[in-house]
Amino acid sequence: MSFLKSQSSQLQLKGIRGAFLDFIDDPFYVSEAESVRYVADGLLVLADGKVEAFGAYGDLCAEYGEIAITHYPNRLIMPGFIDTHIHYPQTGMIAAYGEQLLEWLNQYTFPTEQKFKDKAYARNVAEIFLDELLRNGTTTALVFACVFPQSVDAFFEAAEGRNLCMIAGKVMMDRNAPAALCDTAESSYQETKALIQKWHRRGRLRYAVTPRFAITSTDEQLRLAGQLLQEFPDVYLHTHVSENVDEVAWVKELFPDCQGYLDTYAQAGLVKERSIFAHGVHLSDQEFQRLSEAGAAVALCHTSSLFLGSGLFKIEQAKSTEYPVKVGLGTDVGAGTSFSLLQTANEAYKVAQLRHQTLSPFKALFLATLGGARALCLDDTIGNFDLGKAADFIVLDPRATPLMAFRNAPDTPRDLTELADRVFSLVMMGDDRVVEATYILGELAHERTNLESE
Amino acid sequence: MSFLKSQSSQLQLKGIRGAFLDFIDDPFYVSEAESVRYVADGLLVLADGKVEAFGAYGDLCAEYGEIAITHYPNRLIMPGFIDTHIHYPQTGMIAAYGEQLLEWLNQYTFPTEQKFKDKAYARNVAEIFLDELLRNGTTTALVFACVFPQSVDAFFEAAEGRNLCMIAGKVMMDRNAPAALCDTAESSYQETKALIQKWHRRGRLRYAVTPRFAITSTDEQLRLAGQLLQEFPDVYLHTHVSENVDEVAWVKELFPDCQGYLDTYAQAGLVKERSIFAHGVHLSDQEFQRLSEAGAAVALCHTSSLFLGSGLFKIEQAKSTEYPVKVGLGTDVGAGTSFSLLQTANEAYKVAQLRHQTLSPFKALFLATLGGARALCLDDTIGNFDLGKAADFIVLDPRATPLMAFRNAPDTPRDLTELADRVFSLVMMGDDRVVEATYILGELAHERTNLESE
Repeated sequence: MSFLKSQSSQLQLKGIRGAFLDFIDDPFYVSEAESVRYVADGLLVLADGKVEAFGAYGDLCAEYGEIAITHYPNRLIMPGFIDTHIHYPQTGMIAAYGEQLLEWLNQYTFPTEQKFKDKAYARNVAEIFLDELLRNGTTTALVFACVFPQSVDAFFEAAEGRNLCMIAGKVMMDRNAPAALCDTAESSYQETKALIQKWHRRGRLRYAVTPRFAITSTDEQLRLAGQLLQEFPDVYLHTHVSENVDEVAWVKELFPDCQGYLDTYAQAGLVKERSIFAHGVHLSDQEFQRLSEAGAAVALCHTSSLFLGSGLFKIEQAKSTEYPVKVGLGTDVGAGTSFSLLQTANEAYKVAQLRHQTLSPFKALFLATLGGARALCLDDTIGNFDLGKAADFIVLDPRATPLMAFRNAPDTPRDLTELADRVFSLVMMGDDRVVEATYILGELAHERTNLESE
Repeated sequence: MSFLKSQSSQLQLKGIRGAFLDFIDDPFYVSEAESVRYVADGLLVLADGKVEAFGAYGDLCAEYGEIAITHYPNRLIMPGFIDTHIHYPQTGMIAAYGEQLLEWLNQYTFPTEQKFKDKAYARNVAEIFLDELLRNGTTTALVFACVFPQSVDAFFEAAEGRNLCMIAGKVMMDRNAPAALCDTAESSYQETKALIQKWHRRGRLRYAVTPRFAITSTDEQLRLAGQLLQEFPDVYLHTHVSENVDEVAWVKELFPDCQGYLDTYAQAGLVKERSIFAHGVHLSDQEFQRLSEAGAAVALCHTSSLFLGSGLFKIEQAKSTEYPVKVGLGTDVGAGTSFSLLQTANEAYKVAQLRHQTLSPFKALFLATLGGARALCLDDTIGNFDLGKAADFIVLDPRATPLMAFRNAPDTPRDLTELADRVFSLVMMGDDRVVEATYILGELAHERTNLESE
């Protein structure tokens, strides 16, 4: 009996061998030697979609030498990327021309989102969206649906079908938007409540109460959003803040009694742990402090803030020692110009350079993995290869294009200095082509099919 | 006899059919209706590598119906892109981490360029570099070699072997650089002169007198560069100007008697037509005026000026009505992060947005084609599909990736409004994958081999 059990358990084990990179602490606050975990020849042992063992192949092969092992030589295996802000209904309207935030919403976004009243249409786009996430190595995302509850159902059904860890929510929006896209404070409360009860903590899915932003929600709607957070203390809050100068000015007009943009949310009880605010380009010192004290997070969306001309995020302020704020990267598609968190990190590096800051490649990749998991309060289950975590991981090919193959030698980096150079090339030159494989709960969910090779 | 001649001439003709986009004037100064030439179903007739006829297929098919025609349905055919500033020796050091201009030169560039003393090495890199240009749809470039004359020979030999229209030159550098990379004023003069006599106007090749920048050239070297321009009035001048604040300050120290950075070149007679200055991020009003009056050009290198944190170019000042300056796009690899002029245009759009300017997709593509040709004074032979011009062109696939295929319908745009949206997606989402084919003098020189398709 015990023999059979052992054999059965043995059958479920499988291994991934290769060079592994993940983070065990935050390189913004401790040295890279203390935060970066690099195993040049490692073995990741999986059981039931979780990490059963992880370490140097030489240390583990005696115990796990008999299990089926997939070997990825000359690749880099990382935890799946985590996108802390993205809009699935905007997948097809990526690269919409010529406007800054408020005009862009009116001209492109609102007309597009009206299509998502049709659940079949929404489901189709949700599948395409998830294909793109996986193609780009993103395994978890915090996602805006749109105002229609069926747009949330469509998304969660698609995510559930792929065993993905996803957070999403219905947009709450009861003013300053086309009537066809508006709910009311009361209907948004009721619909959100029903969606929470239906989807929150169903498998790997989580719900985020999602007022679009202060401009499109009345005080009453924000108050009811806060009431939902009280009724369901472990759901998320997901919204935008201080993205654009005109937006900030309008908020000030709409909420004359509030002390700044963030305060419109704080007064409704929306600034807390599990609250994620996208952008924050124009946050004040006091607002950063308030986010820090509340344990709330900011999603940095650099391709978007450049595309809409919103401004340059102050990364060193968010990651200050005095008032540290949890930070993740967000693609913010469709205002973002790429689904790739590598390309998002590329722009994050450039924005830092413009501000005479330097964003190291390890810091950037921390933000895209464990940093994002912490921002989403999911670091107990995803974000690195710690034992027991979900086996959502990606296999990166540092020689995916002819130019990358010329720049990067085929050998595996031996130390953090060599690794830093290698991963910096992934950040600056990488896109979906470097993602050779994406695994969800230990199962292959995306595999790059063809590459141009000459 | 005449029958035979006619038949022989007939045999040399071939046609390309598809949707064509080029520019017949500058959309910064005339309307897009007057500057954009779009032929939704066009025929390009080629003879001996040049444009023999160009127009609507319906108008030309009677006359040219019998020639061999290659049809590219649902593609967009454009003149080849023109890169007005790039360093071929820096191909393999793209994405070098962490520094701004002056430190980046010392830490990465100078050590790399020393390898190009070995001509065989240089030739190998030149071939890889040209592969990348063609893969990205770039058919002409203004190219820095390095200080060694053999690095120029290697480049021109490689370019000549592919029948490419290329401009390049030996770096002149006699101070503030490692001794192994320095020439002297006199040796740089003699070596440059010999290279001009060897390569300038040999087939499609042109020579550019190439002092690196004022910091690394003595007054005497700049004076001799000016003397070369007088001795060979139709060679080019290619250098850098006002890229970085520290650089500008250092120039001021080195040239206390000059009225600003550009004046260091002007005093040596280097600011004239056929002079191309890379960057110009920190040029003053007076310097823009001086460039305009001289008929000199600026190469805008946005991925580079973001990557090195140099600053944001003032496009509206360069393209002012009062003092118009000729402008092209440059990738500036290796400080630029991509060989793609589409990705360069993507960053150009974002920089414009940050400055509350709007760079339309047609303006961006003008800069990458006819604008670049004008900047390089090559618009008599390349830059659009005018009769008699060289048949250097590219076939773009607006549905090259799954995401682009979702965003863009398979049908051909019917008018400029539809076309603007389509080409904006190329600018924002495109990279080498959208370049399906690159033709040089009417011959296929690069063809995309594989695409991921799902």
